[in-house]
Amino acid sequence: MEVTVIPRAEEINNIEGKAAVIVDVLRATSSMVTALASGAGGIIPFLTPEGALEYYRRQNGNHLLCGERNGVKIAGFHLGNSPLEYDRKTVAGKTLLMTTTNGTRAINGCRGAAKVLIACALNAPAVAEKLLVLNKPVAIVCAGTKGEFSLDDFAVAGLVVKLLGDREKIVMDDLTMAALMLAESDSIKTLLSRSLHGQRLVELGFGRDIDYCSAVGRINLVPQFDGKVINAGEAASSSATCD
Amino acid sequence: MEVTVIPRAEEINNIEGKAAVIVDVLRATSSMVTALASGAGGIIPFLTPEGALEYYRRQNGNHLLCGERNGVKIAGFHLGNSPLEYDRKTVAGKTLLMTTTNGTRAINGCRGAAKVLIACALNAPAVAEKLLVLNKPVAIVCAGTKGEFSLDDFAVAGLVVKLLGDREKIVMDDLTMAALMLAESDSIKTLLSRSLHGQRLVELGFGRDIDYCSAVGRINLVPQFDGKVINAGEAASSSATCD
Repeated sequence: MEVTVIPRAEEINNIEGKAAVIVDVLRATSSMVTALASGAGGIIPFLTPEGALEYYRRQNGNHLLCGERNGVKIAGFHLGNSPLEYDRKTVAGKTLLMTTTNGTRAINGCRGAAKVLIACALNAPAVAEKLLVLNKPVAIVCAGTKGEFSLDDFAVAGLVVKLLGDREKIVMDDLTMAALMLAESDSIKTLLSRSLHGQRLVELGFGRDIDYCSAVGRINLVPQFDGKVINAGEAASSSATCD
Repeated sequence: MEVTVIPRAEEINNIEGKAAVIVDVLRATSSMVTALASGAGGIIPFLTPEGALEYYRRQNGNHLLCGERNGVKIAGFHLGNSPLEYDRKTVAGKTLLMTTTNGTRAINGCRGAAKVLIACALNAPAVAEKLLVLNKPVAIVCAGTKGEFSLDDFAVAGLVVKLLGDREKIVMDDLTMAALMLAESDSIKTLLSRSLHGQRLVELGFGRDIDYCSAVGRINLVPQFDGKVINAGEAASSSATCD
């Protein structure tokens, strides 16, 4: 199985026909996976708060505005970007309009892919399982932070490579090998904590989010992006969430 | 001390006023460091074999043509790119005209830097020592392989970060942290061996080169590029080489 890790959304290329895996672990994809496991009906990603607001005003009910800028909930929005907010009571049956710069850029960059899956540490084993079933070349896209390489995403990309490599022989380039060796070198919690993004979240008082986002395999669900909406994916079964 | 690792020559930016460290460990910078420690008078880097040949034809004596393409010595050249060829008997007192695509591209990209140092595992401790004396922001430039990220260069960049971090507090971005954690995770020999470049050298019968290039601290010398020639650097003292 051919696997490539793409270090930043800006470096996406050669994605056609592949199974693309989007990782924005702190915290967009962790929140998405949690929200869908908590029964949200779907998630529509937006690049800007304005885009999400404009869409929201045209709907009647059943939608929640979700997103943050610089780690803090956007004024007037229902939810920020902490996965701990996305519990069943709050999101079940709702469609989430989620604005996330890095994650949305990565998702948009993968429009030529055969499948677009949403991954974080919470669902990494389920993602690996799904990729083995799909049996296509894999591109794991690290969303990065404001166009820069992000250690947290790279570590989770390495975790997915490791889980695939435990089951099948992987053909990989050197950057993918670096991600794998990094994931093997320490726990996901330590890797997330050492990233600049992780350090900043701790400073902002979101240390519990790091603990939650580090819980490898807690959610057995592989969200997919169908070109407009991220939904829970066919043949997925949810287990524990943050409830 | 501010330290950045640049993953490929193509991504060099923001180099002005910094101490730039060029790493092309398999095998250009390992050969350069070895050659100067073996008494070569200087090294002139060329992007192409034609450029080196043209220069050579205008000189009379005392120059050696050095370089490889795809791991093999260029036809008509005196030396290839195995550091084990660069012993005192062969290179002492000679000026080497060395063609190396990745390394030369990295060196050319660093022309705006305050200093350009040449590094590999062999002289990594001496390079760290020199950087502490220079006391400028550091950019460690991985040459990469044919425009791609190369695990071997990244590992040695991480080794230099580690040696600096052992002595001084380092301010670093996430990619630099990833290089550091990688260097901490395993021996340089293992890291070089797992790189695609390392694997190919073993297939070509250059396994001994990997052993040699992994000998951290064997050479106490920090070559510098003065805009035209790479020389042994002021105030450097050579110790053991591959003689």
